[in-house]
Amino acid sequence: MDTRRTPLYEQVADRVEEMVVQGVYEPGERLPSIRELHALFSVSVNTAREAYQLLESRGVVEPRNHSGHYVLQGPPLCTDCDMDFPDLPAALPRDVAPDSLTRQVLAEGAQPGWVNLTTAEPAARLLPTKRLGDLTARAVRRDPAAAMRYSLPPGSEPLRQEIAKRVFRGGVAVSPEQVLVTAGCQEAVFLALMTVCKPGDSVVIESPGFFLFYQLLERLGLRAVEVPSRPVTGVDPDELEFVLRRATTAGGEHKPVRAAVLIPNFSNPVGALMPDENKQRIAAMLDRYGVYLIEDDMYGEMAWNVERPRSMTSWANPERTLLCASFSKTIAPGYRIGYLVSGKELFQRAVHSKLVTSAAVSGPAALGITAFVAGGGYDRWLRTARSHYRETVTKMRQVIHESFPEGTRSSRPAGGLVLWVVLPQGFDVIDLYNRAREERIAFAPGPIFSLGDCYRNCLRLNAANWSAEIERAVQRIGELAGELSQARRARSRNRRAVSA
Amino acid sequence: MDTRRTPLYEQVADRVEEMVVQGVYEPGERLPSIRELHALFSVSVNTAREAYQLLESRGVVEPRNHSGHYVLQGPPLCTDCDMDFPDLPAALPRDVAPDSLTRQVLAEGAQPGWVNLTTAEPAARLLPTKRLGDLTARAVRRDPAAAMRYSLPPGSEPLRQEIAKRVFRGGVAVSPEQVLVTAGCQEAVFLALMTVCKPGDSVVIESPGFFLFYQLLERLGLRAVEVPSRPVTGVDPDELEFVLRRATTAGGEHKPVRAAVLIPNFSNPVGALMPDENKQRIAAMLDRYGVYLIEDDMYGEMAWNVERPRSMTSWANPERTLLCASFSKTIAPGYRIGYLVSGKELFQRAVHSKLVTSAAVSGPAALGITAFVAGGGYDRWLRTARSHYRETVTKMRQVIHESFPEGTRSSRPAGGLVLWVVLPQGFDVIDLYNRAREERIAFAPGPIFSLGDCYRNCLRLNAANWSAEIERAVQRIGELAGELSQARRARSRNRRAVSA
Repeated sequence: MDTRRTPLYEQVADRVEEMVVQGVYEPGERLPSIRELHALFSVSVNTAREAYQLLESRGVVEPRNHSGHYVLQGPPLCTDCDMDFPDLPAALPRDVAPDSLTRQVLAEGAQPGWVNLTTAEPAARLLPTKRLGDLTARAVRRDPAAAMRYSLPPGSEPLRQEIAKRVFRGGVAVSPEQVLVTAGCQEAVFLALMTVCKPGDSVVIESPGFFLFYQLLERLGLRAVEVPSRPVTGVDPDELEFVLRRATTAGGEHKPVRAAVLIPNFSNPVGALMPDENKQRIAAMLDRYGVYLIEDDMYGEMAWNVERPRSMTSWANPERTLLCASFSKTIAPGYRIGYLVSGKELFQRAVHSKLVTSAAVSGPAALGITAFVAGGGYDRWLRTARSHYRETVTKMRQVIHESFPEGTRSSRPAGGLVLWVVLPQGFDVIDLYNRAREERIAFAPGPIFSLGDCYRNCLRLNAANWSAEIERAVQRIGELAGELSQARRARSRNRRAVSA
Repeated sequence: MDTRRTPLYEQVADRVEEMVVQGVYEPGERLPSIRELHALFSVSVNTAREAYQLLESRGVVEPRNHSGHYVLQGPPLCTDCDMDFPDLPAALPRDVAPDSLTRQVLAEGAQPGWVNLTTAEPAARLLPTKRLGDLTARAVRRDPAAAMRYSLPPGSEPLRQEIAKRVFRGGVAVSPEQVLVTAGCQEAVFLALMTVCKPGDSVVIESPGFFLFYQLLERLGLRAVEVPSRPVTGVDPDELEFVLRRATTAGGEHKPVRAAVLIPNFSNPVGALMPDENKQRIAAMLDRYGVYLIEDDMYGEMAWNVERPRSMTSWANPERTLLCASFSKTIAPGYRIGYLVSGKELFQRAVHSKLVTSAAVSGPAALGITAFVAGGGYDRWLRTARSHYRETVTKMRQVIHESFPEGTRSSRPAGGLVLWVVLPQGFDVIDLYNRAREERIAFAPGPIFSLGDCYRNCLRLNAANWSAEIERAVQRIGELAGELSQARRARSRNRRAVSA
């Protein structure tokens, strides 16, 4: 985040909100008074007051008459106990089968005329569509030969230089020589896996975890071992160590774990932000176990309640780490420009993987993104996005709370684009999905975020956009969920009556 | 080829040249007289005379006083006997190891200040750089949102429609619903392999064959079995059947062959054009053996001595065939737009492979290529390219003939961009490569086109460009080859003297 442009009161508000997000102050708890804030941050009383006003408008705090500011209760946060995580003691690497439900869900959501809450797409109206289009057009016109040449891996020097600066914001100091330009983050993760894994190897993956990562493992002939990704803090170091130790000693048909694909910053789907000390512990642990870290930090720059968090990579052994990210969620989904960063030897292998699988990155897109990022518009844009997504996610959480059956909880992410909704135990989200699709409303049902029979009471919603149509769609999913809950209760009453 | 715009005398010349290329008339043989041509093609005597004049200027025929036109002798064509093909009876699938020579060769050739004859790049001055740049800029400006959106696989409808028309020129009738837009042909072949193969499977591959295909098999954990690709006619159906039968019955650790990656039209590197009857036989044979056909038809549109030849796919079982090609060698290397075409069920799996490995194709490039191809400039451009490459390849062959050691032969392709040069047996091209790199001249040495110890007396040159600098570089390679040959002869004389 470009702090030079952030007003003082906003900086103070951000710090207070960070404390709330990290659970230092809990919902309902009293916050420092305006006078205390003034002393704590060495700012004027007026600035402290403005900070609280901002936090009010963000829906983070509420003033109570004569007794100061309190952390707003807000809709209930989902907790570990609400979700059917895979059974940890039984967690061993398993083959990934092609999943037809995932394919169906993705295809249906993209149909014209549907309300698509499935894909984690950024808000179209927020993207710098015209500006990036203009910059791309200008760059291609100015140097058409640069667009025309094979931009062989690792890709164009000016773009790699800009990327190195972005990566440094996450605490990772790299030279442009260690930056490989890729076709988005998905390709970066694919190349990372191809670079360090051999078919049959096992890979640690978050659960619930991004469905396309599971399907990618299937295509590469890799086995998956799921580690719970807890709401709020993500993967737990102790749980991860348990899984690593178990997979290592299991023997038999189980090869040791080769890599771990982790999203420490605003994980997908639960939106967890892993505490820095856990990042450090996990980075050291993976190195100790000889497991490659593949960090997906695509959402790292999309922190909207806190400062841009550090990448786990900043604490990791560079020769065993591949950092993957992209510009797809921030400024340009369709341009397909992402990157992979790693230590020297690994890097050479990753470059070779890119060469043999697709030869080069697309020239016109690379020129456009370079112009945009080098032109300085990127940081300004991130500031706009930050307040936009804070607003849309807060609104969607509120509507979920109002329209879904009692006992529904949701994630309270501090970054990213998506919400994870957890209905009461026993609820079958596939029924809900089928009911919603009759009305051309699509969302991502929980079971596609795991290989086991997990998250049947969960769903993921893209919260990047807000409109009357989307509000109605979310309400409608809630109503349908209510009807299904009632029907379920009626059935179980009948069963009891019959058996009585 | 757009025949409406081809003058009659040129059409006649093309037909005659086709007969020469296909070996119906051999070097030194007398061709039909002008009067006979007039009768054969029902054209005027004048048109027949103009046709021969054109063939003279192309270096295909020579007039002899009062006795008509004869097929020009030209530099000697390389034959099967000149090359160390892998030993066919011993040809069994083998693991592919990462090849450091291939990496070195590719990296060195791309260095600034080097004369790069390594990569098969189209001629920069021939590419529609400015026009495509303008069209791309205009398209992105007109509809920046189209560039911005995820163009999820199979890709944008208008582009797939244009591609379906191109593919039809090769005799393959497909609907746009069976076209997947990819990041170039390399990605198409990669996706095809990923779609039909499992790690450990065996794949038939041409030998000498494109080095990046070998390295791609390595990355995917696939095994390779080499089938000779003969100069002039390419893979021989009987030899292929021998290999398939042997690999099928070998048993033990050898899984049956799953797929064959073939380049029937202007194969890389020998430039062979497979006769249509062989294409038919092989297509039927692969189906019989249950082997998937992955046809790389990237050079199909770059026929410069003959009509655009038919794709093998046009005779194949669509449910067992994946046709791959691109616009990279014709109009836009750096844009990375290619395609994959296949039958319905296979197609769904290929689309999924694209989705999980890189999510989508780059928007700006897809818009630009669509505008170019739909605008009708493409066929005009192919006509220009056709005469350009015919000229550069003919010139380079001539210079090779003049400056390389006696006994050197070369391929005489009728399409594509590259020449395959075969030095006398016993010559070590790696020595030559090392001598040339001291003078910053790079080419592709024969051994990287095979997994065995083959083609040590061969090299591939990119013949797309012609300039004084390139002419000097080719001459210089020839001189260095001469010096090395002399040194070798001197050494062997000394050895004989010592042992006598």
